[in-house]
Amino acid sequence: MEPTHSPGSPVRSGIPEHGRIPKYYAVKARISALIGELGEGGLLPTERDLAERYEVSRETVRQALRELLLEGRLRRAGRGTVVAGPKLEQPLSLASYTEGVRRQGRRPGRHLIGLEQFPCPPGLAPGIGAEPGEPVWHMERVLLADDERVGLESTYVRVARVPRLDSEFQPDSSFYGYLRERLGISFGDADEKLETVLATPREALLIGTPPALPMLLIHRFSRDRDGRPLERVRSLYRGDRFSFTTRLGPE
Amino acid sequence: MEPTHSPGSPVRSGIPEHGRIPKYYAVKARISALIGELGEGGLLPTERDLAERYEVSRETVRQALRELLLEGRLRRAGRGTVVAGPKLEQPLSLASYTEGVRRQGRRPGRHLIGLEQFPCPPGLAPGIGAEPGEPVWHMERVLLADDERVGLESTYVRVARVPRLDSEFQPDSSFYGYLRERLGISFGDADEKLETVLATPREALLIGTPPALPMLLIHRFSRDRDGRPLERVRSLYRGDRFSFTTRLGPE
Repeated sequence: MEPTHSPGSPVRSGIPEHGRIPKYYAVKARISALIGELGEGGLLPTERDLAERYEVSRETVRQALRELLLEGRLRRAGRGTVVAGPKLEQPLSLASYTEGVRRQGRRPGRHLIGLEQFPCPPGLAPGIGAEPGEPVWHMERVLLADDERVGLESTYVRVARVPRLDSEFQPDSSFYGYLRERLGISFGDADEKLETVLATPREALLIGTPPALPMLLIHRFSRDRDGRPLERVRSLYRGDRFSFTTRLGPE
Repeated sequence: MEPTHSPGSPVRSGIPEHGRIPKYYAVKARISALIGELGEGGLLPTERDLAERYEVSRETVRQALRELLLEGRLRRAGRGTVVAGPKLEQPLSLASYTEGVRRQGRRPGRHLIGLEQFPCPPGLAPGIGAEPGEPVWHMERVLLADDERVGLESTYVRVARVPRLDSEFQPDSSFYGYLRERLGISFGDADEKLETVLATPREALLIGTPPALPMLLIHRFSRDRDGRPLERVRSLYRGDRFSFTTRLGPE
């Protein structure tokens, strides 16, 4: 039995059974092989050189490169394009972003975009255990790994729960560490929902990504050890830089 | 303190602080509001009507619609464009696709693309507990929900483990159900990795999506109750139709 599309490799095959391969995709497959040869950090030839080498138009090369950039196989570095490292593998767990990144030997960081109080809208109230209209914090931070901007995080929590968030908390540190060490609040559990979305223009600007880059969006609703709703977090991660891992147990 | 970007709503804001809103994004925001008014299944006005209504070019409308389609807010229906329903929320669990979809009141289905034996390549061997070169099954199926194609699943398992897969198993049924009921094999646990990727041309053709639609890719390595590696599964889900949920417990 002759396989039609390399079933033996756990790698996804891109070529339709009808055998008509889009031209840009054939170029992408060849650049993909080149990426393997160059290895992480290797400098890719210019668009013009690639177009000459593969005897296609520069627009065809550009389309192939665009997908490889969106997928995180390549990244821009100065005026060139280099082979990217593997995606960060962040565990889905109640541990903070800070702890997750540190475990992978990367240096976590956060950069504060805004911290403001506002009256809790009805839609947000149940998820954080607030009464509609009571003061709520919205803290927005850019997530960093080795100084690279990789995500954007919005935290919503009742002001009554963390009254001195604006004066006492170092916004480049772990919010979970602050809750635990200064306020004695520990997490009990959380519900999370993951989806893929496109970056909005504002998000793309803050994270420094091309607009419409596929992102991973995680919605978290967490509760403390007494089962009381604690915070709602919306975390947006660059889809080209992050993957998420989990261990599933028996039902 | 006057918020600059509607922090009160748990909805993501798209407008950069510098206030220069891309024209297509302003149109997208207006169509987004229209989507809310029309409700699920509602028919969107034509591109031409929208361009006239918002006094922009049809290309600008097209860009806004393209993003709303990729995000799963709209879907094509015949020659028109209608408001899509919410994304399916699939629990991350050892339960099968079949059970997950059924729990949401949708009718699961699978359509066999191919089932073939091949000698196990070295890279695949440890993950499924095989010796390199021994026969391995590769089963590839399109995932359906209410007859709509929503994903593509590749399963790799040793032939020695399921010798009669080709003659005994109904490929439109649950593989996990088959393992449990016919072979007495139950799952112990599994490691999963989630990421977002672009559909390859072959995948787009099989699932019937636009090429380069953002997809959610889940890699699963599962073990039986004795801790022996059992199967490797690579599942690709339409990013515009699926989200995944999980409950996180204390560390």
